[in-house]
Amino acid sequence: MKPLIALISDFGLRDNFVGVLKAVMLGIAPRARIVDISHGVPRHDIRAAAFLLASSVSYFPRGTVFVSVVDPGVGSGRRAIAMRSRNYYFIGPDNGISSIAAAHDGIKKVVVLENKRYFRKSISSTFHGRDIFAPVAAHLACGVSLERFGRPTIQHHAIGIPAPAIRADMLCGETIHIDVFGNVITNITKKDLVNFIRRKRFKAQLARKKITRLASSYAAAGPGPFFIEGSFGFLEVSMAHKSAARYFSLRGSRGVPVIIRRA
Amino acid sequence: MKPLIALISDFGLRDNFVGVLKAVMLGIAPRARIVDISHGVPRHDIRAAAFLLASSVSYFPRGTVFVSVVDPGVGSGRRAIAMRSRNYYFIGPDNGISSIAAAHDGIKKVVVLENKRYFRKSISSTFHGRDIFAPVAAHLACGVSLERFGRPTIQHHAIGIPAPAIRADMLCGETIHIDVFGNVITNITKKDLVNFIRRKRFKAQLARKKITRLASSYAAAGPGPFFIEGSFGFLEVSMAHKSAARYFSLRGSRGVPVIIRRA
Amino acid sequence: MKPLIALISDFGLRDNFVGVLKAVMLGIAPRARIVDISHGVPRHDIRAAAFLLASSVSYFPRGTVFVSVVDPGVGSGRRAIAMRSRNYYFIGPDNGISSIAAAHDGIKKVVVLENKRYFRKSISSTFHGRDIFAPVAAHLACGVSLERFGRPTIQHHAIGIPAPAIRADMLCGETIHIDVFGNVITNITKKDLVNFIRRKRFKAQLARKKITRLASSYAAAGPGPFFIEGSFGFLEVSMAHKSAARYFSLRGSRGVPVIIRRA
Repeated sequence: MKPLIALISDFGLRDNFVGVLKAVMLGIAPRARIVDISHGVPRHDIRAAAFLLASSVSYFPRGTVFVSVVDPGVGSGRRAIAMRSRNYYFIGPDNGISSIAAAHDGIKKVVVLENKRYFRKSISSTFHGRDIFAPVAAHLACGVSLERFGRPTIQHHAIGIPAPAIRADMLCGETIHIDVFGNVITNITKKDLVNFIRRKRFKAQLARKKITRLASSYAAAGPGPFFIEGSFGFLEVSMAHKSAARYFSLRGSRGVPVIIRRA
Repeated sequence: MKPLIALISDFGLRDNFVGVLKAVMLGIAPRARIVDISHGVPRHDIRAAAFLLASSVSYFPRGTVFVSVVDPGVGSGRRAIAMRSRNYYFIGPDNGISSIAAAHDGIKKVVVLENKRYFRKSISSTFHGRDIFAPVAAHLACGVSLERFGRPTIQHHAIGIPAPAIRADMLCGETIHIDVFGNVITNITKKDLVNFIRRKRFKAQLARKKITRLASSYAAAGPGPFFIEGSFGFLEVSMAHKSAARYFSLRGSRGVPVIIRRA
Repeated sequence: MKPLIALISDFGLRDNFVGVLKAVMLGIAPRARIVDISHGVPRHDIRAAAFLLASSVSYFPRGTVFVSVVDPGVGSGRRAIAMRSRNYYFIGPDNGISSIAAAHDGIKKVVVLENKRYFRKSISSTFHGRDIFAPVAAHLACGVSLERFGRPTIQHHAIGIPAPAIRADMLCGETIHIDVFGNVITNITKKDLVNFIRRKRFKAQLARKKITRLASSYAAAGPGPFFIEGSFGFLEVSMAHKSAARYFSLRGSRGVPVIIRRA
């Protein structure tokens, strides 16, 4: 089976960054398959990348090598790491970008990328994606074992999705992402909601507006905002044929409170 | 020969939808080649996708599997179908998205996608691209025969490109697409025009402005708007080094009348 | 080893142009690997494409075939050419688009694309990327020798990056590109700067604002604009976590003077 490498970054597609990453990888691993998850992560938004990566990983075949490059600390002392989890490999800066995904899959080993033998010969201070992460990923995809890239470590930066809380008679969550269609993903699962309201009606509030329905499909929803169980397990605030983010006048994609009360 | 799968959707490239589709497909068909036609179809614009698909298909090798996902009816009762035409396969919702392309190539068989054995194990109500179309396409690309995916049907939704009409002394067409350069594609072929004007001059009107020339190349055209036979057979309204769509103040891309009179 | 084809164009990703190019190439060379450098070159901006191509080439493996399509003269008398340089092949219109990259690698042979046997059967006047460059690239990737595509020529259009000049006590350069992060790439190398200032301080001026620092990494830089040696060898004007292009109110990406004085 051919090795599969998946990429996520904030590089965009106007510049040549992504093409150059792939050039470096295919020079080392000419048989590797490369899949782009997204290069449209907001610049330097490590948490957005971490969420998007975590919600993508389980669809990839076992053994996929994920290269994640949102790297505002490039050129500083921040470490570069590679992780092996139960089913996958993760390569990138040690800034938490891979931590949600790897932890969810079960981290088995973390190494610090130190062995320059697997880097490009000259290492820039601005583009470790090209000079370190891409060649390491390609060597890993060719079968070099994780241990060869550097010494093991037990520490690495981790970030998490905040869990919703029950306070008094309220289920208190928050927004964690807005997708390209304007669907607003929350940190509340359908199970959280169902356990909280126990087959009763509910009234939810987001940015001073209300949501009172849980829909089973876009088509069944009718006008007005509704919750729907998104493809990644969390409740999403959506509207049929409309951007919910615009309806709720949400600008930032994260941290806006979603408060649910029994009606 | 390796199976080739081509994708068109309204997913955009900021989110992980396209990457996840490819992940699912490569998990099933690791040798498949995947080509993106476009993921920039305006959201929910089935006709735009149908046109773009139809104008792309003939450039692909025989046997290509086209997966088209512009799917505002996802989660409703709309059917999912696969079609075999003379040279190709088409997979997607039964909303007409593949109908122009498949009909042009000559439809041989249509089946309703029902056999859950070829779907992902859990089917969301919002993302059939990932849960149904991608795995079915991958199995088809691996050689599973069309008949295995579901029962044949003789009905499917079809949409067409409206034909231009001759009324009194006018050739009446309309705009059907605006490309990324601002070229305005009409439903009038060069042959329609030549047969109508018979080597005479003509005066065409689009959104209150005039077009009086048929150019053989951009370089030969000079200033002002002109018709040119586009790469997909239809007359396009173009301007050298400028957006014709902007010059004509066109907002919507479709249905604006193009009226040609003999001069 | 599989042939590698790399693409750069001003087609964007909303339309089907890029997908159609790939379809044509994979129909001829089903085993070819295709890498996108960028399709976001500003429309008709040959110099921007030439720069982006030149800064990408060295990362690709030996033997890569580069197809470059920014082609405002399509349909006119402009020639189509293929070049072999020391390590690579370049295909595109003879408008200088490949000239910086090919010259840097050392041009060995240039041929005019004339042999219609290797073109698509019908050649449009608007889309030579699809009808000439893509099929020629695919045949070249399959091992057809350069000489088969047309007669050799010793002339071809060449464009260059202007060299910085020393005038009186000033090192005078200019901007040549703005990347997606707003970093402003100049035509001055770090070596140019170091040789000029000889370990002293300097004061640089760009669009009426000052730059007084050369940083070794983004992380070390602190607030305010600074020079940093970019991944492609030239000094870039950057700001930590900010767009330098916006700070300097730069609109056009090229030709804005960068004047350095010893302080």
